[in-house]
Amino acid sequence: MSQLLHDVVSELSKLPGIGRRTAMRLAIHMLRMEPDSVRDMTHSIDRFRHEIKYCTCCNNLSDDTICPICKNDERDHSTICVVEQVADLLSIENTRQYRGLYHVLGGVISPMQGISPSDLKIDLLINRVAQQEVKEVILAIPTSIEGETTLFYLMNRLRQFPDLKITAIARGIGFGDELEYVDELTITHALLNRRELE
Amino acid sequence: MSQLLHDVVSELSKLPGIGRRTAMRLAIHMLRMEPDSVRDMTHSIDRFRHEIKYCTCCNNLSDDTICPICKNDERDHSTICVVEQVADLLSIENTRQYRGLYHVLGGVISPMQGISPSDLKIDLLINRVAQQEVKEVILAIPTSIEGETTLFYLMNRLRQFPDLKITAIARGIGFGDELEYVDELTITHALLNRRELE
Repeated sequence: MSQLLHDVVSELSKLPGIGRRTAMRLAIHMLRMEPDSVRDMTHSIDRFRHEIKYCTCCNNLSDDTICPICKNDERDHSTICVVEQVADLLSIENTRQYRGLYHVLGGVISPMQGISPSDLKIDLLINRVAQQEVKEVILAIPTSIEGETTLFYLMNRLRQFPDLKITAIARGIGFGDELEYVDELTITHALLNRRELE
Repeated sequence: MSQLLHDVVSELSKLPGIGRRTAMRLAIHMLRMEPDSVRDMTHSIDRFRHEIKYCTCCNNLSDDTICPICKNDERDHSTICVVEQVADLLSIENTRQYRGLYHVLGGVISPMQGISPSDLKIDLLINRVAQQEVKEVILAIPTSIEGETTLFYLMNRLRQFPDLKITAIARGIGFGDELEYVDELTITHALLNRRELE
C-alpha cells in the first residue's frame, strides 16, 4: 500500500468510532475534495486544538478568556446550570429554552478512574455562587453511579448558601421512548414522580 | 458557541457519514489528544492529499510514478485484475491470495451520472494488454447495472486479443450469508453455477 495512504489511515483510525475501513473511506473521499478544502479542514482542526481556551468563569470552551454566554448581558446571570461536559451544554443550548448561565465541571467524581472533586471545577462553582448574585443552581448531571455521587457532593457543598435554590433536571421517560425498552430505575423514577393530570 | 469549535465541526461534518454530533464528539476527543498528535494527524492528511500520485501503469494510488505492486518482480505480470476503485484492490490484497497485477478503472460506466468509457482508465488497460505479455484479465467489477454494462463493454474491447483469457470473479452466496436474506439474482446465479461435489 502507498505509504501516504497507510499513514493517513493509521492516523484517522486513532479517532473514536473510526476503524480502518471508515478511515480508508474518508481518505478516498478526500481525494475527491478540492485540495484547498482539505487544507481548510486540517487548518480548522489545528487552530481548534492549539488556540481554544476555557472560559475562566464557567469552564466552557471559548475563543477568549470569557465565553460568549458569560459575556451576554441579556442572559439571566442569577441562574447557573451545572453540566458534566461541553457537549451537554451544547445540547441544552440547542433547545433554545434556557436563558441562564452554565458551569462545566469537566467530568464527574469517579474513585474508580481516580477523579476526585479537586480534579473538577467545583471550587470555581462555589466561588461563583459566593461572589455573584446567584439565586438558583440547576444540576444537570448524568444519571450514573458517578453522576449521583457528584450530585450529592455538590448538594452538600452548595447547602452553605441558605438562600440558594438547588434543583435537578427531571428524570422520566424520554419523548418517544417505548416503556418496554426503558430500564427499571428510570421507570421507578417516573412512577414515583408521577403528576396529576388536570 | 466558540467560533473555533464551530469551524472545526462544520469542516468535519463535510466528510461522508459524519454528522454534526459525531463531528462534535471528534472535536472534543481531539482536546484530550496531545497537540503534537493532532498535528501529526492533520499533517498526514495534508501530505496525502497533496503528494499522492496515481500509478501511470495501473492507476492505483501511489507515492511514486509506478506503484509498489507494478514494481514488484515477484508478482505475476501476466495476470491483471480489473477493479472499479482502490478500495476494491485493497480488499483483494488483504486476502493475500492474489499474486498478479491490478488495473483500477476509477469508476464504472454510468450514463445516468454522465460517466462514459472515456472517463475511465480503459484505454490504458487496452494499451497494457497490447504492449505487455498479458495472458489473463480477471474482471472484478461490482454486480450492479452499471457494473454489468462496464463488464460487457470491457469484454467487447478485450476480444480483439485472440489469445487473451478473460475471466470474471465468481458470483454466489457469501461466506456466512443466510439464504433467507440473499437477493434473488444472487441465488439464481448460485444455482446456475452450482458445482458437483466430489
